[in-house]
Parts: sequence; structure tokens; C-alpha cells
Amino acid sequence: MENTDPAPPGRTAFADRALTAYLETLPLPRARLGGGAGDWRVEEVGDGNVNFVYRVLGPSGSVCVKQAPPYVRVAGESWPLTPERVVHEYRALEEHGRAAPGALPAPLHLDRDRHLLVMEYVEDHTVLRHRLGRGALHPGLGEQVGDYLARTLFATSDLALPAADKRALVAEFELNTEMCRIMEDMVFTEIYRDFHRNSWTSPELDAEVAAVRADTCVLIAAARLKDRYLTSRQALLHGDLHTGSVMVGATGSRVFDHEFACFGPMGFDVGGFLAHLLIAYFAADGRRGTPSPPEDEQQAWLLDQVEQTWDVFRERFLALWRSSGRGDSYPAALFADARGAAALEAERGAYLDRVLCDSVGFCGAELMRRLIGFARPADLTGITDPGARAACERAALRLARSLLVDASGHRSVRDVTDAARHARTG
Amino acid sequence: MENTDPAPPGRTAFADRALTAYLETLPLPRARLGGGAGDWRVEEVGDGNVNFVYRVLGPSGSVCVKQAPPYVRVAGESWPLTPERVVHEYRALEEHGRAAPGALPAPLHLDRDRHLLVMEYVEDHTVLRHRLGRGALHPGLGEQVGDYLARTLFATSDLALPAADKRALVAEFELNTEMCRIMEDMVFTEIYRDFHRNSWTSPELDAEVAAVRADTCVLIAAARLKDRYLTSRQALLHGDLHTGSVMVGATGSRVFDHEFACFGPMGFDVGGFLAHLLIAYFAADGRRGTPSPPEDEQQAWLLDQVEQTWDVFRERFLALWRSSGRGDSYPAALFADARGAAALEAERGAYLDRVLCDSVGFCGAELMRRLIGFARPADLTGITDPGARAACERAALRLARSLLVDASGHRSVRDVTDAARHARTG
Ligand SMILES: Nc1ncnc2c1ncn2[C@@H]1O[C@H](COP(=O)(O)OP(=O)(O)OP(=O)(O)O)[C@@H](O)[C@H]1O
Ligand SMILES: Nc1ncnc2c1ncn2[C@@H]1O[C@H](COP(=O)(O)OP(=O)(O)OP(=O)(O)O)[C@@H](O)[C@H]1O
Ligand SMILES: [Mg+2]
Ligand SMILES: [Mg+2]
Repeated sequence: MENTDPAPPGRTAFADRALTAYLETLPLPRARLGGGAGDWRVEEVGDGNVNFVYRVLGPSGSVCVKQAPPYVRVAGESWPLTPERVVHEYRALEEHGRAAPGALPAPLHLDRDRHLLVMEYVEDHTVLRHRLGRGALHPGLGEQVGDYLARTLFATSDLALPAADKRALVAEFELNTEMCRIMEDMVFTEIYRDFHRNSWTSPELDAEVAAVRADTCVLIAAARLKDRYLTSRQALLHGDLHTGSVMVGATGSRVFDHEFACFGPMGFDVGGFLAHLLIAYFAADGRRGTPSPPEDEQQAWLLDQVEQTWDVFRERFLALWRSSGRGDSYPAALFADARGAAALEAERGAYLDRVLCDSVGFCGAELMRRLIGFARPADLTGITDPGARAACERAALRLARSLLVDASGHRSVRDVTDAARHARTG
Repeated sequence: MENTDPAPPGRTAFADRALTAYLETLPLPRARLGGGAGDWRVEEVGDGNVNFVYRVLGPSGSVCVKQAPPYVRVAGESWPLTPERVVHEYRALEEHGRAAPGALPAPLHLDRDRHLLVMEYVEDHTVLRHRLGRGALHPGLGEQVGDYLARTLFATSDLALPAADKRALVAEFELNTEMCRIMEDMVFTEIYRDFHRNSWTSPELDAEVAAVRADTCVLIAAARLKDRYLTSRQALLHGDLHTGSVMVGATGSRVFDHEFACFGPMGFDVGGFLAHLLIAYFAADGRRGTPSPPEDEQQAWLLDQVEQTWDVFRERFLALWRSSGRGDSYPAALFADARGAAALEAERGAYLDRVLCDSVGFCGAELMRRLIGFARPADLTGITDPGARAACERAALRLARSLLVDASGHRSVRDVTDAARHARTG
């Protein structure tokens, strides 16, 4: 989760000494750190809103400790939240990590009683959103995230898994109910009503927000996507894949913060990530202050990353299906001869067309809720001039609506980037 | 499950005395039976294939005891099967029973250690398939089963349930993996390959079976439906709703044998039941021996029941949604004003159109597997003349294919009954 309030200072779950003494008892973290507790230093890593996150530095390396209090950290005990979220985060790190080693921090230890996990500390990486907010690019981004999406979503789907293994995983992640509820409420429901946590650039966008809430095509599309989030168990999702859940560095990208992990429609992850690239695209205009018709270099690059993310996701997913489609769905044995193989190959394309349609819809839903809901991203809230902010948000709202209400009309990712350009120029 | 082998005699799980002594310890069953163990008589109820089923008669009434051995009863220990199935059957009786009281036997007791359940014994009812096989009608059938489907599928969907309750139920029924696996294999996979348990009217239908297996449109459609069965968690299904899972009597219909219960697409239950009405429709020709162009009274009635089942399902489901749509999906609060209400009402229709499309596809898949797979129903296997049997099966196969490969082309239930008439007359 993200919001724009700064984290209150000084709230910590652990005395440093207690944490290092505890880590000394854990073989994997101890080995990474080197030396003993006396050689280790603890730093709180400040910018998460929900949990306590620490970096612990030792002579040979660092580990990252994430501890989930039974509430939202920045809100305190007034906003209770199950600490079990950390268990699902850890398990998702394991399942996704197996599918895409190196694309996320390596999980090192889970403590179910203390609601705490230890993972690899990712050195020399920056949260992608911060980087984009400074106008920077990260070469290879779409390729890296598209690859992560293909590997993790394929590996946890019925295309890869025997049904018995898949059903056991579904049963396990079904228990991440409270975190799913946050998405059900925040993404698909609260923004379409009068709700105390909603916020938008007011009064500039008041009329637009009123229009969204009165727009029955938008309401129905959002409700239909909510139904899909509630009823589909297609793959194990990251569940909150935005540009604040990706760190980038010289060696690539790392995806983290899997506390919303659940089984759901693949398009929820794919579309969610695309939405945040598109937010950065519109926000770039807001930062410049004046509407400037030609796209800047970052904007052109961002749309290119939208296309790259989808194209790489699609190609790698297809390649994995061809080479490793050993799950119970689309049983390979039925399509063994040449005609069968050709028919299955065509169906693979149709399957990914359906994932694209879902992705476009969820992208629209995510854009919408990040523009007028509770968790507005720093890309937008960091634009100090309300007029400039409203102008770029208005353009993004136009895109959000078109993706939401006409998801199936966008038959390729090129249709999405075209629609973004079109929305930007009014 | 059904097959055509007779049950081996004399295999019982319980000595009668042990069973009555056991029942005496259970308050609800004891109260139903009246008197004490010495007054009770045990009869084995013979025609199930998978479990031991007993009727226990007492001075005030009867109860039915169903015990699941760790194997398939008629096959013995050579075909192991989890005895946990009885737990899911009992829980489904509870969940569906709450939604549609009176439409299924009342659950009275579950013994998780003995893998045994006790339920109401339904007096003076006949298994629907037997009745249909004798050419009989049961007035009100479609209305009764349509009502059962509407109530149970609505009540266990996200339209009725808060997401937290629904997710807990999904997690629970996800564990009925072994029973689901039987459906995954038998309905969607084995019949399309050379598999030792497949059987059909041979050699008469050999060419048709070869054609089905070479028909990539059929294979892809079946695989896509399997994927839907594996990934959709729309509602708690009966999971094996055929005419052998319905008893009919003067007071109506009772649905039983919920051991395949799992969360899945609503159309799996709806289409499954329609398939068995259609099997009876084609089988009526086979029983007569000669192809006789005009439909007989039962056949006309059967197609009417296909329409009734769907129409009643649809209307009651819509009525329940309007009156009791308090689940997290399609949140009522978003559609409170007149324009919102009208849009939601249109979307309800679209939702049911999607359920119809699923139902038509699953109906085709179920028809197919009952014609050329392991579990051929008595309607067909009871036709002694192979030529007559093959002729009606050939007609049913034509329908199966058209429903499978062009589910969305059947835009109303009338299109389905028209297609059945068309397939019958070649
Ligand atoms: N494994 C890691 N290696 C390096 N830095 C990390 C790691 N995990 C987290 N961080 C840093 O800590 C910050 C907070 O982490 P994270 O987002 O997981 O916490 P959170 O409380 O769940 O926050 P959110 O509000 O995003 O849900 C991240 O933005 C990142 O800067
Ligand atoms: N509650 C009941 N009241 C009356 N008769 C019942 C009841 N339950 C089952 N029966 C009778 O017992 C028979 C076998 O029951 P059931 O189909 O549940 O057993 P099964 O072993 O699961 O069989 P199947 O092969 O259909 O899976 C039924 O066909 C029906 O005649
Ligand atoms: Mg987080
Ligand atoms: Mg049974």
C-alpha cells in the first residue's frame, strides 16, 4: 500500500540488540551476515507504510527483516490488519522465487510466531517509482518485468502444475482474505462512492469524479472485474504489482512486497504494472507544469516499456507453455500429432488474447483508483501545481475510462499505447 | 459415479448390530428412528457404486447411513479413493441444505473418523434415471431442479456471500482434490484418448469415436472447459448432478450424492443435468428399437424440462440476486439510484447469458463422455439392440459436438432444444 503521509518517526517493533541476538540463532541469515551479533548494525528502512522493515549489515553482507505488526504501521492500532500477511508474503517469495530465481529477494527465514521474515537485502537498487519520478529510465525494465510475470504466472497456473498441487496452493493462499479484502474495497468499490479515504485534486477534478461515479458503464465494468478477482483462481499473483514493488539496479529488476499474494486472474498483475507505467507517463507532463505536445524521452520510453512488458510476457509465457506445459490443463497428450499441435498453438494465442483483455480491464481499474482513491502515488502527489496535476490526471482519467469500459476493444498492446497517446493530447 | 457392472454381493462395511449400536449413541438419528437399537432393522441399499449405503428403519422413521471405504466399493481395494469424500459430501449437504431446505436429504451426523455420514432417509422416492428409463414423466421436474440450482449456486457465490466467508469455503472444498481429479480425467481427458476404461457401442460407433478424437475443434473446446473447471471458483457445485443424483416422488425432487462437491463454474452443474435429460431424450428412441420420426410424449416432455430447468434457474437466480444480493460482488451500494439499478439489471442478464454459455459447453462435454467413456448411463447400456443403441447414440453425439464446439452460438435454451431435435432427425 502507499499513501502520501510521511511515516511517523520512532515507532519500532524491535530494539536493535534484540533483533541481532535473534538473528544470531538463524543459520541462513547468520551465514549471510558473517561474524556474530556484536558485528552487526541495524538500520530501519523507512519508506514502507504497512510493516517494519530493517536492514541488518554484517561483515560479509546484509539481510532484510520485515516484521508485520497486527495493524498498519503508519496508522497504528486504529487500523488493525492481520499479521498473517507476512506468512503469505514469504510463501509467495518461495513459490515465485522458484519460478523466477533472481527476480526477487531470496527468502531466508520465516518466523510464524513473531510474524517476521528474513530475506536477502537487495544492494544498490532503487525503488522504480522514485527513479521514474526523477525522470530517469531503466533500460530493460519491460523485458525484466515481463519475464518475471511470465515465469511466475505460468509456473503457478494449471498449465504447469498438477491439479492436486495447484489446489493445495489455492487452499493455502485463500487464507490471505484480509489482504484481498483491501483490494476488493480499494480497487473496485470505495472510489466509486463517497468514502472518507478517497482523495483527488479538488476542486479541479470534482466534476470528473462526479461523472465517474454517475457513469454506469464504468460502474458495471468495475463490478465485473471485481467479480473476476473474486472468482478466478488462474495463477498465484503478486497481488500489488506497482512501480513501488519493483527495485531496479545495474543488475536488473527485483520484485518485492508480496503481502497481497493470492490466486487470481493473471491480468490483475499484468494490468496493474502497466497502469503504473502509464501513471508515470501522464505524471511527466504534470512535472513539467505546462502541457507540451511532443512526448519527452522518458514518456516515449515508458510507452515502449508498456509494449515491451506485454510482448515479453506473451512470448516467454508461450515459450514456457510449449516447453513445460505439464500441468493438468490443456493436457499435452491430447495434442500430440501435427494437427493437434497446430490447434493447440492457435489456442495458446487465444488464451493470451484473453489474458490481454483481462489485463486491459484491470489496468483501467488500477489507473482509476490511483487517480481518485486513497492510495494516490507519489508520481502524482509530488506534482505541486494543482492545475498541472489536474491536467495530467484528467488525461489519465480519459484513458482509464476507455480501458475499463472497452477492454475487449483493445486487441493488442499497441491499441493501449495508442489510446494513451490519444488521451494525453485530449 | 456410475458404471454398468453389478455390485459384488456381500461386501459390507458394518455388521448390522455394530451399526445400530453405533447409531444409538447419536442423538439426532436416534430421535428420528424412535425406540432403541433393538427395535431397528438395517438394509443395505444396493445401487451405489462407490460407497456403502444403508437404510436403518425404526419405529418412528428411517435414516440413511453412507460410509466411504478408502476405495471404490464395486472395484475394491484395487481402486483406492480417499474416504475424505464423505466429509465434503456432508458439508455440501449442510451448505446446499441451508440454501434449499427440503431439496436434499437433511444431514444428521458426520463422523470424520469412521468416514460416515447419517442423513434423512427419503421415503417413497425413485431415482430419476430409473423412472425415465421406464418411459415415465415426473411433473414439475425442471421447476424443482431449476429451483435447487438457483438457490444453491446463488447462495454459495460471491453475489450472496461476504468474500471472507466465501474464501473460507473455497479453502475447505479445495481439499476435495481426489474427487475433482476423477472429473478432470473422466469428463475432459480420458475419452479423447485411447484409455482402457473407455467403452462405446462397438463396432457400430468406432468410426465416430475415431472422428471425435481427431476433431481438433472438439479437443480444444474440451480442454478450454477443463481449464475453466480448474480455474473458476464461482459457486459451490454439487459436482456430479445427473439423473442418478436426483430422487423423485409425490412431494417433489431430492438431490443427493454430493461427494464431488467443489467450487467451480455454475454451468458445470446446470449443463451436467441438462445433458442427462438429453440422454434420456435420445435413449427413448433406442428403447423403441426403430427410428420413429415423431417424438413420443416423454421426449417432448424431456425437452420441455430442459427449457424449464434453465428458465426456472434463470428466473429464480435473478430474483434471489435482486432480493438478496448482499455479497461482495456487484456491490449493491454502487447501483442504488434508478440509472444504476437499470444498469445492474441489464448486467444480471448478461451474467446469466455467460452462465448459459458455460452450461451449453459443459452439457456438450458431459454428453460426450457419457456416450463414449467409462461411466455410460443405464439409459443407454440398457438398450439391448446394438443397432438401435448406436443409432440413438450417433444422434446424441451430433448434438454433443455442436454444443461443445459452438457453445456461444446457442444463445438461448430454445437453441439447445432445437439443436437436439435437429440432431435426432439427422
Ligand atoms: N529485500 C529488500 N532489499 C532491499 N530493500 C528492501 C527490501 N525489502 C524492502 N526494502 C526497502 O524497504 C521499503 C519498504 O518495504 P516494503 O514495501 O516491502 O514494506 P511495506 O511496509 O510492505 O510497504 P508498502 O507500503 O509498500 O506496502 C521498500 O520500499 C524498499 O526500499
Ligand atoms: N438419503 C437417501 N434416502 C433414500 N435413499 C437414498 C439416500 N441416499 C442414497 N439413497 C439410495 O442409495 C443409492 C446409492 O446412493 P449414492 O448414489 O449416494 O451412493 P454412491 O455409492 O455414492 O453411488 P454412486 O455410484 O452414484 O456414486 C441411491 O441410488 C439411492 O437409491
Ligand atoms: Mg507492502
Ligand atoms: Mg456417489
